[in-house]
Amino acid sequence: MDAEAFRREAHRLADWIADYLADPSRYPVLARVNPGDIRSQLPDDAPARGEPFDAILSDFERVILPGVTHWNHPGFFAYFAITASAPGILGEFLSAALNQQAMLWRTSPAATELEEVTLAWLRRLMRLPDTFDGVIYDTASISTLHALAAARERAVPGVRFGGLAAASPDGGPRYTIYGSDQTHSSIDKAVILLGFGHEALRKIPSDERFRMRAGALRDAIAADRAAGRIPLAVVATVGTTSTTSVDPLEEIAEICAREQIWLHVDAAYAGVAAMVPGHERLLDGAVHADSLVVNPHKWLFTPFDLSVLYCGHMDVLRSAFSLVPEYLATSAAGGVRNLMDTGIQLGRRFRALKLWMVLRHFGAEGLRERLAEHMRLARLFASWIDASSDFERLAPVPFSVVCFRALPHGSEPNAADAERETGLDAFNERLLEAVNGTGEVFLSHTRLNGRFAIRLAIGNLHTTEAHVARAWHLLLEHFSRAIAD
Amino acid sequence: MDAEAFRREAHRLADWIADYLADPSRYPVLARVNPGDIRSQLPDDAPARGEPFDAILSDFERVILPGVTHWNHPGFFAYFAITASAPGILGEFLSAALNQQAMLWRTSPAATELEEVTLAWLRRLMRLPDTFDGVIYDTASISTLHALAAARERAVPGVRFGGLAAASPDGGPRYTIYGSDQTHSSIDKAVILLGFGHEALRKIPSDERFRMRAGALRDAIAADRAAGRIPLAVVATVGTTSTTSVDPLEEIAEICAREQIWLHVDAAYAGVAAMVPGHERLLDGAVHADSLVVNPHKWLFTPFDLSVLYCGHMDVLRSAFSLVPEYLATSAAGGVRNLMDTGIQLGRRFRALKLWMVLRHFGAEGLRERLAEHMRLARLFASWIDASSDFERLAPVPFSVVCFRALPHGSEPNAADAERETGLDAFNERLLEAVNGTGEVFLSHTRLNGRFAIRLAIGNLHTTEAHVARAWHLLLEHFSRAIAD
Repeated sequence: MDAEAFRREAHRLADWIADYLADPSRYPVLARVNPGDIRSQLPDDAPARGEPFDAILSDFERVILPGVTHWNHPGFFAYFAITASAPGILGEFLSAALNQQAMLWRTSPAATELEEVTLAWLRRLMRLPDTFDGVIYDTASISTLHALAAARERAVPGVRFGGLAAASPDGGPRYTIYGSDQTHSSIDKAVILLGFGHEALRKIPSDERFRMRAGALRDAIAADRAAGRIPLAVVATVGTTSTTSVDPLEEIAEICAREQIWLHVDAAYAGVAAMVPGHERLLDGAVHADSLVVNPHKWLFTPFDLSVLYCGHMDVLRSAFSLVPEYLATSAAGGVRNLMDTGIQLGRRFRALKLWMVLRHFGAEGLRERLAEHMRLARLFASWIDASSDFERLAPVPFSVVCFRALPHGSEPNAADAERETGLDAFNERLLEAVNGTGEVFLSHTRLNGRFAIRLAIGNLHTTEAHVARAWHLLLEHFSRAIAD
Repeated sequence: MDAEAFRREAHRLADWIADYLADPSRYPVLARVNPGDIRSQLPDDAPARGEPFDAILSDFERVILPGVTHWNHPGFFAYFAITASAPGILGEFLSAALNQQAMLWRTSPAATELEEVTLAWLRRLMRLPDTFDGVIYDTASISTLHALAAARERAVPGVRFGGLAAASPDGGPRYTIYGSDQTHSSIDKAVILLGFGHEALRKIPSDERFRMRAGALRDAIAADRAAGRIPLAVVATVGTTSTTSVDPLEEIAEICAREQIWLHVDAAYAGVAAMVPGHERLLDGAVHADSLVVNPHKWLFTPFDLSVLYCGHMDVLRSAFSLVPEYLATSAAGGVRNLMDTGIQLGRRFRALKLWMVLRHFGAEGLRERLAEHMRLARLFASWIDASSDFERLAPVPFSVVCFRALPHGSEPNAADAERETGLDAFNERLLEAVNGTGEVFLSHTRLNGRFAIRLAIGNLHTTEAHVARAWHLLLEHFSRAIAD
């Protein structure tokens, strides 16, 4: 495809995407295909000869598109609702064309330095201290993995060379890591991957508002020390995945400082809220953290993927990972950072470009307004739940996620009858399926204190009050149908 | 930015990119900026108010573009030269717009199933057995990390729960991993990250053609066993980074089978060559491998990033990583794969889309022709080196990379005089800098048997014989200047 053919196809695709973005709600939000439907429509082998791009695009529309769950749909309320904003999409388009591989400064000075600049912008927007240096990874799973790898590097003598077995000559899982029972599964995976074993992870009970109990953390650390184990890291969460609860950062930071334990803050979703008036103090406790992850691809309108790790000890992270084979050695150019030194991935995409475009397009005020609006919509929805005798809210709403359930037949909230609870779980699961079956909205669920909770998350730029009201209307409508059955 | 504004800006950007791709060689291939040049031109803070997209694009051209090293430039001969082909760029554009997060089948049936289909296509193109199941990651570093994590899961009893310390109650690095002295640094990083410690990695000497010595591998395994250590995995490389040498796969596979050691094949760069006539048997030995990584973003015209891990024991990989928190539980839909179960990263981009577009656009024949042409150009360049008394070739050329050096003043090759070698190294380093300073080409270097080697890699779709000839001409010209100085 020469440049003129590319121009023609790119214009065609630009129109297709513009039409798509004009109204993604013409599609069912949750893909209506059965397992194997996409696969079975495609041949077993790549074509022998090249095919024209319009044939490919036409197959895309016919075969692939029906299998797309529309994360862009304004009725997407599941998981964490996210947005590929227009400037972010354009940034990705440009980044794909430039095809930068920013492993070394010289292989992309632009990507390397724009990453520094945009991460400093974001850091200041989030009111984080200047002592945090930042690096872009793909996902929070990888950011957290690196944070815990750095914690291991600092705490375990010689781990880089001798490994964990040599560091624990008497056997047994000597090092321990702490999260709450609401901590994200990526912490579990990182602990396993790093060779600590899942048993090294302590899940500290959370309180009635799903926040880690600092006292229980203190006790667990003391018990581990008494048993000869070495507490290595605590992961505190600002915006847990189920309820977006916020762990008591300042208390946890105090414990970690006293005990000299690495404090990693998982603010992947909610960290950006620190830029919103009324939430300025959200990350105050993070001043004393060793690292913090925030995902602009979650709630900052940046196309997936882009996760940021801020770290107060980037030298430790580098010493855990820096390895320079000769084919990547560059002559000593004072003061350049080579992104490959900050992690497991040698190759780095030019992700900063889309973030830069998003931050400039919206501006600080524009970002604040939109985040505030999402929080207003969530509070509004929560107020409808609270005002209804047929529903109950199951968690506070600090940001833009509401957890709730239906209470058919005038069930009393918090009744202890196990059978009734099982019935309620099943009822809510059916209700959720029915509502999602409309194709107009997609909500997900979680379990809170063992109970099935429906979860509505607001994070899409195109979600308006009308969409939230529509979700509420559908819940009421299917609730009535379900109790009539 | 509403859909119409997006349409306008997307068309503007499509034209910019088409103009750019029409002739990237109007720019110096290696960015001509000094450290800090980009950073210093950008403000310390994000703008308070949003800015129009044309202002952002104009700053991109003025500030960012000069800091871009042009991987698209047909004179890019460094590292592994790569290509963001037109269909691949369009695939990324579309993927960014759809913003799929394919952690679960239901969150993107299209991404999940198209990944299966395209990886089956690629597997057949590469003549790999059907017993290999595939999964897409971002980079080879991550693919290899997962391969070695799976090897650990299979070999170390209870590692997922008790970790490595519990598995080695007598202390010491009991598990060992093997590569050659030419193995990629990502193996080192994976071994460190997994908690084995760098000392667990054995670098088996390579032969005079930079291939792992199978006998030395056998001896090293025997010595480790005799010392009570447990050999865990061998990484064999098809296309090493320095010289693209190919380890003796069949011999290594035999050793691994006999010893019951996980065999991981790093075919990140050269694996795709198996589809080219004359190279059909390249991966024959991989039939007995446990896993293999190949990177379509390296030499298959797919924009960075897209790495594929093929694995004969995807169940082991899943058992190492599968963790399903309630908020991600889906009702049992028989037979769907959830990509989050195959690794550390919960979130997955829709990377298969660009690969699908690339495979269809070129077709099997088109891919073969282009790979064969790159190999022809490399052999041609090697023939010029071989015919010159001023240069010597330092390694065989199995694929599209040539390692060589200049021999000024009629120096005899392979002379043992250390001082002369140091002088040669310095001369070649200066020559490389001078040639790269022209802005017309960018070559990189490596060290082979301790000697500085200039390295020319061909992998860009737009590189023609004229560009390779120009590189040769520049080498000759700057060689003459250097010896005249």
